Amino acid sequence: MPFFAGVDIGGTNIKAGIVDYNGDIYGEADTPTGADRPQDVVFEDILGAVKKAAENAKINLSDIKAVGMGSPGVMDSEKGVVIYNNNLGWKDFHICDKMTEALKVPSVIENDADAAALGEVIAGSAKGAKRAIIVTLGTGVGVGIVINEKILRGSEFGHMVIKHNGRPCNCGRRGCFESYCSATGLINMTKEKIAEYPESTLAKIGNKDGVNGKTVFDAAEMGDEVAKKLIDEYLDYLACGLANLIDGLQPEVVGLSGGVAKQGEKLLKPLREKVYAEIYKGILTPAKIVTCTLGYKAGVIGTAMAVRDL
Amino acid sequence: MPFFAGVDIGGTNIKAGIVDYNGDIYGEADTPTGADRPQDVVFEDILGAVKKAAENAKINLSDIKAVGMGSPGVMDSEKGVVIYNNNLGWKDFHICDKMTEALKVPSVIENDADAAALGEVIAGSAKGAKRAIIVTLGTGVGVGIVINEKILRGSEFGHMVIKHNGRPCNCGRRGCFESYCSATGLINMTKEKIAEYPESTLAKIGNKDGVNGKTVFDAAEMGDEVAKKLIDEYLDYLACGLANLIDGLQPEVVGLSGGVAKQGEKLLKPLREKVYAEIYKGILTPAKIVTCTLGYKAGVIGTAMAVRDL
Repeated sequence: MPFFAGVDIGGTNIKAGIVDYNGDIYGEADTPTGADRPQDVVFEDILGAVKKAAENAKINLSDIKAVGMGSPGVMDSEKGVVIYNNNLGWKDFHICDKMTEALKVPSVIENDADAAALGEVIAGSAKGAKRAIIVTLGTGVGVGIVINEKILRGSEFGHMVIKHNGRPCNCGRRGCFESYCSATGLINMTKEKIAEYPESTLAKIGNKDGVNGKTVFDAAEMGDEVAKKLIDEYLDYLACGLANLIDGLQPEVVGLSGGVAKQGEKLLKPLREKVYAEIYKGILTPAKIVTCTLGYKAGVIGTAMAVRDL
Repeated sequence: MPFFAGVDIGGTNIKAGIVDYNGDIYGEADTPTGADRPQDVVFEDILGAVKKAAENAKINLSDIKAVGMGSPGVMDSEKGVVIYNNNLGWKDFHICDKMTEALKVPSVIENDADAAALGEVIAGSAKGAKRAIIVTLGTGVGVGIVINEKILRGSEFGHMVIKHNGRPCNCGRRGCFESYCSATGLINMTKEKIAEYPESTLAKIGNKDGVNGKTVFDAAEMGDEVAKKLIDEYLDYLACGLANLIDGLQPEVVGLSGGVAKQGEKLLKPLREKVYAEIYKGILTPAKIVTCTLGYKAGVIGTAMAVRDL
């Protein structure tokens, strides 16, 4: 049976897995990234994690037919090069040449969010969807697009402007989807509300425990009207961005992941109402909107699945 | 040599062509649509136009390997059905069943804007591009996406919101790309400026000749500052929408067509500056922005090319 190795290279940890053609994991391994070390030294640990995962899966290295890798940052997947990766301090790293030389099999480097989206399509929340969009609501907004089980590489719909001349975004534009809908955006908006309504329960919780992406949901749970109104605003922006993507790409499934998505149905139920009210009326079968199910495994499975048909 | 028939079914005219595998036209024919007639009667004229085009191309009907058709409206291309088409008054029209029965070859119905985009990729402004986006700035904003010479069916990025709670759009949303950047949107904004600045050259031209999509460009040409400012605003919105699409889909080429695009380099030069300033900084090779070159032939060639690999 052919196996594929998948490696998710994060700023903190490297996670490797041995995966079969259907996306089932046979063995895993992880190791700290140690991102302050030179890239060639980090690479040795990536290779070590693959070998350890193969050992844990009780397979020979020669049973691995190809290696898929994922990392954040800008890459040229055609050439197998990480152009730059701020988290890891990598620049022009020809990582696929190194992996292919080490294991004598083809290898591919993908954007990590794209790879995770493919994982969800092969084995998770969007299983079997011909078109799927996975939206990660984390520090930023990542949008992974998978069409016919292939990653549409390089998508940066997180920086789609949904409000011309709106909130400034780190990318330099104003009014990006990310500037409103990332956990960071939600935290910024929460802080603004706290300043505006210092007597609210929202302010009391925020001032006591610090503000994170959960604060507004906790306050709303306690009946705070300021928090409820902010969640409604947040969902308006999120629905706007998702409706844009559904109108434009007509996916069968939209999967949400990242910290904010942990709110589950509490978030999804009102979100679906807003999205379905917004989308273009001519759409024959509107996308299902779900939460992702694979967690960190999406990256390991997805990177492996990116090389299963090489 | 295998030939393919392409038919562009518009509200006013039906245009048919016989096209080879490379997108070269060998014969054409057209006939008024007569959209007030029953759909089965219109179909007879569609069939007649294909036969006439074959005659003009000096080929036998049996040399036609497949027939591609394009129309506006909502369709189920998988099933070969026009679900509805307001211009033609069609509803649940199984047009491919009829065409295939008549000519004994496979047939496909595509959205006309999608098909035109494919035409530009095979034989026009985006020739050879692996990813291309064709944006038609007409009554509405049509966005046709072609990836690896295949239409990404069903895209409605014309209704992507670029300004949350902005101008109302016919579709029911507010702030759509279309509501700002279609010829209709530009005309609406021109009328508003005329009301606001009744002494401007823009107002004088508009009040004398009526307002169309060209009025503001004519006034700017004559040095009118109100017109120049409006063009700058219009280009801001257009750059915003195009930058969203370039960030999200990373096309090699963006082709503009429709009435507004006839302004050519006068429009494109400042537009490119604005787009390139807006797009995500990590993009390796930003899209070329050009005007489309095939005119009405894009529809005939594109519909034919949609069936060349059946």
